[in-house]
Amino acid sequence: MSLRPTLDFLLYDWLDAAALNERERFSDHSRETFDAVLDTCERIARDKYAPSNRIVDTQEPHFDGEKVILPQATHDAHKAFVESGMLSAAQDYDIGGMQLPYTLQAAANSFFAMASVSIGSGMLTSGNANLLMVHGTAMQQEVFARNEFSGRWSGTMCLSEPQAGSSLSDVATRAVPDGVDFQSDPLGPRYRLTGNKMWISSGDHELTENIVHIVLAKIPDADGKLVPGTRGISLFIVPKKMVDTGGALTGVRNDVALAGLNHKLGWRGTTNTLLNFGEGRFPVDGKAGAVGYLVGEVGKGLHCMFHMMNEARIGVGTAAAMLGMAGYYASLDYAKTRPQGRLVKKPAAEGASAVVKDSASPQVRIIEHADVRRMLLAQKSYCEGALALELYCARLVDEQKTGDAQAADDARLLLEVLTPIAKSWPSEWCLEANSLAIQVHGGYGYTRDFPVEQYWRDNRLNMIHEGTHGIQAADLLGRKVLMEGGRGLQLLAARMQATMARAAGVAAFAAHAQALGEALARVGSATKAAWATGNPQEALANAVPYMQAFGHTVLAWIWLDVALRSLECDAAGTAPATAGRLGATAYFFNYELPKIGAWLQVVERRDPTCTALPEDAF
Amino acid sequence: MSLRPTLDFLLYDWLDAAALNERERFSDHSRETFDAVLDTCERIARDKYAPSNRIVDTQEPHFDGEKVILPQATHDAHKAFVESGMLSAAQDYDIGGMQLPYTLQAAANSFFAMASVSIGSGMLTSGNANLLMVHGTAMQQEVFARNEFSGRWSGTMCLSEPQAGSSLSDVATRAVPDGVDFQSDPLGPRYRLTGNKMWISSGDHELTENIVHIVLAKIPDADGKLVPGTRGISLFIVPKKMVDTGGALTGVRNDVALAGLNHKLGWRGTTNTLLNFGEGRFPVDGKAGAVGYLVGEVGKGLHCMFHMMNEARIGVGTAAAMLGMAGYYASLDYAKTRPQGRLVKKPAAEGASAVVKDSASPQVRIIEHADVRRMLLAQKSYCEGALALELYCARLVDEQKTGDAQAADDARLLLEVLTPIAKSWPSEWCLEANSLAIQVHGGYGYTRDFPVEQYWRDNRLNMIHEGTHGIQAADLLGRKVLMEGGRGLQLLAARMQATMARAAGVAAFAAHAQALGEALARVGSATKAAWATGNPQEALANAVPYMQAFGHTVLAWIWLDVALRSLECDAAGTAPATAGRLGATAYFFNYELPKIGAWLQVVERRDPTCTALPEDAF
Repeated sequence: MSLRPTLDFLLYDWLDAAALNERERFSDHSRETFDAVLDTCERIARDKYAPSNRIVDTQEPHFDGEKVILPQATHDAHKAFVESGMLSAAQDYDIGGMQLPYTLQAAANSFFAMASVSIGSGMLTSGNANLLMVHGTAMQQEVFARNEFSGRWSGTMCLSEPQAGSSLSDVATRAVPDGVDFQSDPLGPRYRLTGNKMWISSGDHELTENIVHIVLAKIPDADGKLVPGTRGISLFIVPKKMVDTGGALTGVRNDVALAGLNHKLGWRGTTNTLLNFGEGRFPVDGKAGAVGYLVGEVGKGLHCMFHMMNEARIGVGTAAAMLGMAGYYASLDYAKTRPQGRLVKKPAAEGASAVVKDSASPQVRIIEHADVRRMLLAQKSYCEGALALELYCARLVDEQKTGDAQAADDARLLLEVLTPIAKSWPSEWCLEANSLAIQVHGGYGYTRDFPVEQYWRDNRLNMIHEGTHGIQAADLLGRKVLMEGGRGLQLLAARMQATMARAAGVAAFAAHAQALGEALARVGSATKAAWATGNPQEALANAVPYMQAFGHTVLAWIWLDVALRSLECDAAGTAPATAGRLGATAYFFNYELPKIGAWLQVVERRDPTCTALPEDAF
Repeated sequence: MSLRPTLDFLLYDWLDAAALNERERFSDHSRETFDAVLDTCERIARDKYAPSNRIVDTQEPHFDGEKVILPQATHDAHKAFVESGMLSAAQDYDIGGMQLPYTLQAAANSFFAMASVSIGSGMLTSGNANLLMVHGTAMQQEVFARNEFSGRWSGTMCLSEPQAGSSLSDVATRAVPDGVDFQSDPLGPRYRLTGNKMWISSGDHELTENIVHIVLAKIPDADGKLVPGTRGISLFIVPKKMVDTGGALTGVRNDVALAGLNHKLGWRGTTNTLLNFGEGRFPVDGKAGAVGYLVGEVGKGLHCMFHMMNEARIGVGTAAAMLGMAGYYASLDYAKTRPQGRLVKKPAAEGASAVVKDSASPQVRIIEHADVRRMLLAQKSYCEGALALELYCARLVDEQKTGDAQAADDARLLLEVLTPIAKSWPSEWCLEANSLAIQVHGGYGYTRDFPVEQYWRDNRLNMIHEGTHGIQAADLLGRKVLMEGGRGLQLLAARMQATMARAAGVAAFAAHAQALGEALARVGSATKAAWATGNPQEALANAVPYMQAFGHTVLAWIWLDVALRSLECDAAGTAPATAGRLGATAYFFNYELPKIGAWLQVVERRDPTCTALPEDAF
């Protein structure tokens, strides 16, 4: 199985990515240059990532007392990725970028996520540098962002602390001005940071010459107290090794120490670290405290960081989708070749046992069994649907950046509403797809001789990475569908209605269009019902079931839109790919969309079963 | 958290296990002797199993070229288990058993499954010996079963082959008579077996002096051909080491060789092997071929084996339930102590953001968050419900063995219908519970510093072990609900109706009773609709969604019955345990039972989406 035809259809036929070349920023590009990028990434992923996916799982990162050791395969893959130029693919020509649309970058990255999600650590480096391109000074961009885009250095984002994971307002890392002249450092106002950061991906390794940490910390007030809440948070660049304004290493180690490697269930190729900032193990100028340079304004750190988090969430969603896809392809391949059992048939004689099999006939391949087909089609509908959603969101990012004022603002607001779904939905349902891929393999699926158990383990982290389901759901129902008077939800509804209007005229889709309309109306009325008392504790008590129903409705819309376009491109509907998309759409509408009823019931009545139970009754 | 109060309630208050002592077989027993058994097992599980659960995960079984090496902890735990006498707990006094009800044995085993599911390998040994007590000769019982019950030897069941996992009719292991006098061996008609057996749990190790394999094989006809289908299958005892009629080892190795250890995702403490029978590495009397002694009649092997498989399926269901329970307790404990975030509250001013938090207040423990409570209550409803179902089935086993003729026959038929649910439902939903336990832990949940990720991995095997979901579902809809004119389903419906009738008179349960009635009616009509055309390919195309809906309906009934009894025992409903059971019941009816609609829709219309899709469209 090759991902490419699916990706080409979604990019060019469905999202019309080639039309982006009409915009000034992308005017040097053409379908040919896009294809060349995809070709390159597909090749590197196949040659350098996929063959090492099991190696990075079994050879976990370890610390030899001085350095974090990663397998040689990770170094080779990283080198090939850097050489491809993908780290700065979407950046301006004048800083060495390709000025590629983000849509293309997201599509290209999907190859790496599918081949080996835990080798591919470029996302944080790009995201880190992108943030500096928006909020950093010219010098910070020149010294830090450029060296990240070139792959010479890598980047992290240091948000969580051991006592503050989801609750960023409780960040306790302190940043104090470094001397009276702290304002005059050319790299930015200089502070000394002290604190512990947990779950830091790629927090230490030898893949690059240096590591650029972007760190959330609080600057104490005159009394030495930290401001409660997120308003007190500022953002700092904290390099692992000190650098000068020319981007050269000064030979001095910054006071950032690896305190531990987390040993994980999956995604093992990427180091996941606890870092101690400023504990004094590596004093700079004879003083404890990690040197950090302020980015943006004091107290606006979280605002700046959110710029990075939204693309990171699309990145996590894409990773989840592609892990699902990897399992789908593996199980499809297995199902087409593995013989096992025979088909049931109707008995010749009345009154015989209802089910007979002709045991003298040869075994059939398991793809001939109805239940195996159900498990395959479910995977297809989850994973190709999720990929389409992520690419749709990526296309909105381009619209936000290069569309006209109205289109850009609409895209911004649609992204606000869709990002929680883009993050959460694939992490839940493509994990389920991975479980089905194991199931298709039978006993072989749970052995490490087949790749599917690792996909499942790797994918389990995605429901937690970059904001848990609970965080995403509170964001969706508590903020996103309410903001700007509910206009984001209205915009989304208008896009769905446009799809329904087109579908209503196509015989094959009329019933789907009606079902989608009913689902959308019910999501709308459930939103109102949740907030009917205006009490957020009641409204949000069932925020996750709400998000699940919202997500299934979005995916039903995505599939209907994809199916419509597929039939427009192949009116006879005879090409296998078209039949596949129509089949996956039918599956989604017949088997999946009806699930929203059970989820929305509890939202609509603000079901208090869980909140009302006394703690000692659990 | 202690399992014991839950177990005591289910055993004594709900299932009235103490009343079994009125039956002659159990008349020496009392609640006191039952409690003593539970105390002992609880203690051994706590002291010898739980502390080693991570060790057996990280120190996988390995083969040193001669022996399979297991951690010392496994040897210690096995020794303590053997010394407890639980291997023969349900057996007659005259062969050294305790004549305990199977219900008590199942309850006692739940401690071991919760403490370390993959150390506990007693189930196969008991099952193997039980089979011989029914189908073996007196000599086979004396030599093999007795030495298994005493723990001197252990047992396996060798069904699957690399090319025949779910499809037992394709078993290709051959058994040919061993010489002209093959009928005259005192241990049973002697054959020589040749073939490969896959997925054999505890297939090789040094825990016991010898291993008694029970092996499915086919005896070729006069032309040397194997009879196709399951009718040709016979059953053989194949000891790892040859023994004499006194049960002494003769010093001769039988021709059974370890061909490989399967490296698994979870359940790593139990060896899982590929065994080669009769490849000639260990010739007996100078001849290749593993010596095997026929059990029961030629061609009746599968019939004999099914005797063992039904209890094995209850055992797998119990293991799945208890893995879920272990995760529930771990995440409940974590949620009660981990501070993170604050509760949302209503803003004081109109027009402010809908959700505010007081960031100056201390963090709350995460059990105070609505979504964490939802995840905890879901786990409780899945896992305690599943345990109740398994104990109910165990009680039916006792009824089948010791009830009066009508009760015994009803129990037999109810077990036929319920066994696919007892096997499949916990393996699906207690796995989901384990995923929720990870989610409650946030990032810590996916690290190996906390136990929940292992529970999740261990549990993933249960949807495949002892017959996949697909196999169970085909058994349920293709055979069990149809057999004897549908009388099994009618018996089950009558029991549900009795519960509903009791519940209808209790204000707190009237709505639940009505919902259960509607669910039952819908399962009934879906069963008819599935078979409306009489075509098994159409009926069984959606057998798994059917089984999911059937299972949820059964669990709703179990919970309603448990809740009724709980309120009878504590009419005020004020005890925390009562409130907990009523809460879990409400959760199940409000959040879970409504899911059956989506599953049954496709069953009712015999939805052909998956079967109709051309293979090249996947």
